[in-house]
Amino acid sequence: MPRLIVTYRVRSDAASIEARARDIATEQSVEMPLAPIDNAFVKSEIIGQVEGISGTGGGLFDVRIALSGETVGGDAGQLLNMLFGNTSLHDDVLLRDVDVPPELAKAFGGPNVGVRGLRESVGAKDRALTCSALKPQGLPPRDLAALAGRLAAGGLDYIKDDHGLADQNYSPFADRVRACAEAIAKANRASGHATRYAPSLSGDLAAIRKQMTAVRDAGLDTVLITPMIAGWSTMQTLVRENRDLAFISHPAMGGGQIAPPLLAKLFRLLGADAVVFPSFGGRFGYSPETCRAIAGAALGDWHGLKPALPVPAGGMTLDRVPELLDFYGRDVMLLIGGSLLSAKDKLTEETAKFAEAVKRYSY
Amino acid sequence: MPRLIVTYRVRSDAASIEARARDIATEQSVEMPLAPIDNAFVKSEIIGQVEGISGTGGGLFDVRIALSGETVGGDAGQLLNMLFGNTSLHDDVLLRDVDVPPELAKAFGGPNVGVRGLRESVGAKDRALTCSALKPQGLPPRDLAALAGRLAAGGLDYIKDDHGLADQNYSPFADRVRACAEAIAKANRASGHATRYAPSLSGDLAAIRKQMTAVRDAGLDTVLITPMIAGWSTMQTLVRENRDLAFISHPAMGGGQIAPPLLAKLFRLLGADAVVFPSFGGRFGYSPETCRAIAGAALGDWHGLKPALPVPAGGMTLDRVPELLDFYGRDVMLLIGGSLLSAKDKLTEETAKFAEAVKRYSY
Repeated sequence: MPRLIVTYRVRSDAASIEARARDIATEQSVEMPLAPIDNAFVKSEIIGQVEGISGTGGGLFDVRIALSGETVGGDAGQLLNMLFGNTSLHDDVLLRDVDVPPELAKAFGGPNVGVRGLRESVGAKDRALTCSALKPQGLPPRDLAALAGRLAAGGLDYIKDDHGLADQNYSPFADRVRACAEAIAKANRASGHATRYAPSLSGDLAAIRKQMTAVRDAGLDTVLITPMIAGWSTMQTLVRENRDLAFISHPAMGGGQIAPPLLAKLFRLLGADAVVFPSFGGRFGYSPETCRAIAGAALGDWHGLKPALPVPAGGMTLDRVPELLDFYGRDVMLLIGGSLLSAKDKLTEETAKFAEAVKRYSY
Repeated sequence: MPRLIVTYRVRSDAASIEARARDIATEQSVEMPLAPIDNAFVKSEIIGQVEGISGTGGGLFDVRIALSGETVGGDAGQLLNMLFGNTSLHDDVLLRDVDVPPELAKAFGGPNVGVRGLRESVGAKDRALTCSALKPQGLPPRDLAALAGRLAAGGLDYIKDDHGLADQNYSPFADRVRACAEAIAKANRASGHATRYAPSLSGDLAAIRKQMTAVRDAGLDTVLITPMIAGWSTMQTLVRENRDLAFISHPAMGGGQIAPPLLAKLFRLLGADAVVFPSFGGRFGYSPETCRAIAGAALGDWHGLKPALPVPAGGMTLDRVPELLDFYGRDVMLLIGGSLLSAKDKLTEETAKFAEAVKRYSY
C-alpha cells in the first residue's frame, strides 16, 4: 500500500530541524534506533521517511513525513496512533495535515449520506440548513421533550442533543430519546416540517449499540457522536453498522495539537456526515481563516468521499445569520443553541425567525 | 452525589479572570446562558460553581470549579467530557487536577491488582521491576517471538508490545500473541524466571474482546491499553470484565492540555495497574518535577484505590539505572526498549545486565 503523507508543524531552530524531522519519522514508525533493524520489509516499508521540510517563518517548519499505510491495519484508532500517538507528547509539534492513499480512503469510506443525504432528509435542496441543541443537561426527559417540540414547531431542520446529555439517572438515554422523538414527530405532523432529531451517543461500543436500538425504535435517522471521547475505532464500526444513518461529529476533546481543519477532514474520513466546530465570533477563539479551512476540509474533493456539512456553532446568534451565510455559503448548517433558548416563552417564535432568516437569505 | 472539584490553569489578565472562570463553569456544565434556566434541580445541582481562584504568577491562575457528579452517569468517557470536553477547545486552559467524590472513586474502582499484584506475579516483593518492549512493528510474529524469548531469557519482569503493534496483516494479533507467549513461557521454563507478557490491545470494544480471548488462550494475565485512543469507556468496561488481569496504560495521544500527573491519576481511576510515561532525560521533554508528580499521582493515597506502578520510559538506558532508582525509589518499573535492542546479538546478555542492575540496586 502507498504511504500516508503527514505534515507536522514543528517549532525548531534551523540547525536542528533536520534531525528533529528524522526523530519524528522514527517515533511515528519503528520507535527505536535504526541501526539494529535488519529486516528488509521493515527497512523498506515501515520506517518513516522525511519527504520535505519547509520553513513557514517565526521559527516554525512544516515537516512532511511518509508513513506506511500497512501499519494502520484498517483500524481508525490505530490510524490516530500512527499519525500522532507518541509525538503528541511533545509540545513543539502540531499535526497539521494528512493525505492518505486512495485505498485507505476507500477502506474507511467517509460519510454514509453526506451533504446531499442531510439535505434530502429535510427537503432542502440547496439552501443552508438550521440546527439547535437540547439543553441544559439536568432536565428530565419530559422537559427536554417539551423544549424539542417547541424548537421543532419553529421549523428547524435538525435538533441535536447537547453533547453533555449522556445516560444519566436524571435523564436515561432511552427515555429521553423516546420522549424527544415523539415531541418532534408531533410538531412535524402539525407543521408539515421534517425536523430531524440527533441524540448524543456515549459510552463504549456495547452501550452505544444499545442506544442505537433506542434510536431506531424511535424512528430516527441521525445521531451525534464525539469521536475523541467515544474512540475513533468505535465511530468507524458504528458508521459501518448503520449505513442508513447520518452521523454528526462533535469536536469535544479535539483541542490541543491537531489542526482543527485536519480534525474535520479526519472525522469526515471516519464517516461524519456533518462536523460541528466552534465558529469565529462566538465563545471560542478560532479565526475566520481557520473556520474557512475547516469548511473546506469538510466539503472539498478528497478521494471521492462524500462531502460533510460544516456546522459552525459555539455562541452563534440570530443577528449574525446574514454574516455567517455570506462567509460560509449555502453548504452549511447553522447551529444556534443557547441564544434561542434565552427567548424562553418566545422560543418557537425566535426559532421560526432563525429558520426563516436562513431560508430567505440562502435562496 | 457531592461534586467533582476540578482545577483549571488559565492564562488571563487579572481583570478578566473572574468572568473567565464563570465561563468555564458554565461551559463544563449547562453550556448555555444561565438566565433562561428555571429548573430548580439544574440551578442547585448541575450548574458549575467557581470555588476559588488563585494567581500562580506569570499571568496564570488556578481556577477551582465544582461540577456535578451526577452528570458523569458512571461513564468514564462522560467523565472526560464533563471535565474538559469543550474547554479543551480553548487554548488558554490546561486541565490541572481533579478530585472526585468517594462514591465516584468507588464506582470507577481503580486498579484490579495494583502494585502488589504486579509484584506478586513476578515474585518481586519489594524491589523495582524491569520491563522492555517488542519492536519494531513490521516484524512477523516469529521474529517478534524470537525477540521476546531472548528478552525473557535475560530475566525481565515484564515484556510489553510496542504500542504500535496492533492487528496488522504482516503480524495479526492472535498469531503474534500466541507466538510471543510461547517463546516467553519456554524461556521461563529454562530460566526459572516468571517473565510476564503484555500484548497491546487496539480497536473497538468488540475487537478488543476478541483479543482478550486470545490473551486468555495464551495464558496471559497482563495487557497494554492506550486509553486516549481506545476510549475511556472502553477501558472502563474491559477492566470490569477482566478483574483478574493487570492493565498497563500507554500515554499516546495524551499530550496537549491535560497535566501529565493528572492523566496518570485518571488512568489509575479507570483501572491502570501501571502507567507508562515519558521520563525526564529521554526523548521527551517532561521535567524531573513533572515525573515526580506523575509517580506521586500513581502511588499516592487516593480514596482507597490501589496504587498504580509508575513506568518511566521513552529513551531510558542501562547506565541510568542507579540515577533512575535514586529518583523514583523502589515502587517503579523501569522500561528500557530501543537501547536494549541495540545490543543485537548480545540482547540477552544486555537484558540480564539491566535486570541484575535493578535487582542489585533496589534491594
